[in-house]
Amino acid sequence: MRALRYHGVKDLRVEHDIPEPKCGDDQIKVKPAFVGICGTDLHEYSSPTFIPSKESPHPVTGESMPITIGHEFSGTVLEIGSKVQTDVKVGDKVAVQPTVACFQCGACQDGFINCCDSAGFVGLSGGGGGLSDAVCVGGEFVFKLPPNIGLDVGALVEPLAVAWHAVDAAQIQKGDDALVLGAGPIGLGVIQCLKAQGANKIIVAEVAKERQNFAKHFGATHIFNPIQDDLVAKCKELTDGRGVQVSLDCAGVAASVKTACLAVRAQGRVVNVAIWEKEVPFNPNNLVFGEKKYSAVLGYQKKDYQGVIKALGEGSMQPEKMITSKIHIDRVVEDGFTPLINEKEKHVKILVDLSA
Amino acid sequence: MRALRYHGVKDLRVEHDIPEPKCGDDQIKVKPAFVGICGTDLHEYSSPTFIPSKESPHPVTGESMPITIGHEFSGTVLEIGSKVQTDVKVGDKVAVQPTVACFQCGACQDGFINCCDSAGFVGLSGGGGGLSDAVCVGGEFVFKLPPNIGLDVGALVEPLAVAWHAVDAAQIQKGDDALVLGAGPIGLGVIQCLKAQGANKIIVAEVAKERQNFAKHFGATHIFNPIQDDLVAKCKELTDGRGVQVSLDCAGVAASVKTACLAVRAQGRVVNVAIWEKEVPFNPNNLVFGEKKYSAVLGYQKKDYQGVIKALGEGSMQPEKMITSKIHIDRVVEDGFTPLINEKEKHVKILVDLSA
Repeated sequence: MRALRYHGVKDLRVEHDIPEPKCGDDQIKVKPAFVGICGTDLHEYSSPTFIPSKESPHPVTGESMPITIGHEFSGTVLEIGSKVQTDVKVGDKVAVQPTVACFQCGACQDGFINCCDSAGFVGLSGGGGGLSDAVCVGGEFVFKLPPNIGLDVGALVEPLAVAWHAVDAAQIQKGDDALVLGAGPIGLGVIQCLKAQGANKIIVAEVAKERQNFAKHFGATHIFNPIQDDLVAKCKELTDGRGVQVSLDCAGVAASVKTACLAVRAQGRVVNVAIWEKEVPFNPNNLVFGEKKYSAVLGYQKKDYQGVIKALGEGSMQPEKMITSKIHIDRVVEDGFTPLINEKEKHVKILVDLSA
Repeated sequence: MRALRYHGVKDLRVEHDIPEPKCGDDQIKVKPAFVGICGTDLHEYSSPTFIPSKESPHPVTGESMPITIGHEFSGTVLEIGSKVQTDVKVGDKVAVQPTVACFQCGACQDGFINCCDSAGFVGLSGGGGGLSDAVCVGGEFVFKLPPNIGLDVGALVEPLAVAWHAVDAAQIQKGDDALVLGAGPIGLGVIQCLKAQGANKIIVAEVAKERQNFAKHFGATHIFNPIQDDLVAKCKELTDGRGVQVSLDCAGVAASVKTACLAVRAQGRVVNVAIWEKEVPFNPNNLVFGEKKYSAVLGYQKKDYQGVIKALGEGSMQPEKMITSKIHIDRVVEDGFTPLINEKEKHVKILVDLSA
């Protein structure tokens, strides 16, 4: 079968002679339809972190480079293993949760497989990937899409589940005001999830004009440029002097963590959605005065997939405009990675259309 | 009446001609008995932060230097204002919650007077202080001591309430394992509160030998020296590889925040109890991987005073050995501040005995 495999730094190859995987008893075999390109893919392209090297195969999959990539994907069901208990049927349109976990470590045993000591992703850690003609995943990781949702939007469920999980962690109460720092793909997802979960004011800090426009489209009620505007003061002005109840840091820079902490009111919640590359200067007093809570989220759980898919089915999230381009698997670098790096403000999500 | 007043940097004076305060309708007048010297007092002595200067009177009390000091105190009730609703009677032994708040800002209106925008303390911000013959405070801030608790231990209720509040924020479940970083006066209080609230292993990181001994006396089950021992590894060894459920940072240095974050298991809780002087390097990824929660606490609320006093009455906290010296009001600097600065490991709490 066909698969796009990562062989090393900036070495991606579409190969046509990859053996089709066999569907295990506890697995579902999916024919991928659309695959989103994620910031992690871009990062891995030039500097592999998740993709295991030959020297250090992934502890769960046992695999190393070359690895089939693509972890944000929808598809149709080809086959269902004999031991799988599911409402999904052959031919159904589905979204796939690409979680790889050991199911043995403390975190897994405690029910937090997203915090697995050996956590990985289908499409980064082995076990196949979305950018192929067939992939087999655990039966519990395949979710039927509502009839009104296309397979293209189905490929957005994964990044939206990241956002849903973060907003869930923020414990949004109906009417809470929120600050979102950064309106990249995850920030835009967070805006939509905040709206779907009943937030009142959705204040967004974003530098790029194009992203500001996307933020407005998806439900931001107030948009500021953090370079020009004093976000902490703006948040207080908009909330009767108190500050917002919740801030979500989707930017992940020293300035955003400080603003996120100072913009929330007493007892407010800060949720870090970003992955960080290094230490930043941080003054815990920004949380002390006001007894604020800072929590960090990572990935998603089954309930987040269910939450997103329900919201999509009901129409309380309409993420179609996140899809800014659809491309062919033979041109992933030229039409996908390159514009996402060079013109990143113009794009939210570029999908690889595997039917093309 | 007599009062110890702060006139400026290193200028403390026992004065004998201070007018006795009048008890307002909503106040209780207390004759202080014992007054603890706190790290904040030491800090203010050489570098006033809380004590308002003549240029910036405290927004609630309207007062500025000279200010009567002493905010950790017990006493006996001299008078009860006509509008006070309380179970306290004249002559009762009491502990005083020295909270100063505006009762008007967002935090106060939301019920978090410890997070008041203008928060202050009786004994630092005006409104009198414990180091005097009489002080009048709001009726809701006076708590009757159980009959088995002496007035000396009553002066420990304030620092223990700080610790109780922190342990409460850590949401200790019976059987949880906890790491306490730093065994100064607050850390030792935290150890006692953890024990009283049902923690299982109480692992303590402390450099000073004397403080390690105090920690052991008050209930630490495992004690390590953070300079010599790898606390993160030790915590994992002691918890089946998972890490502790809760860590409490009572040290407030860059190393302690990192250890506190890394020593907790997936979904673990880190509670910052320290007040910080500056920014420290911080990598949010130390919370991201494991989806950990970092919260900060400040002071206490009424329920914390009630919790401590109930635990003292029942004997589930026995803090007597925290009192390492009792001194005279005329020798607060020589016998109080000086040993607390120069021999700080030998002392936990030095009390000024006002009956002397």
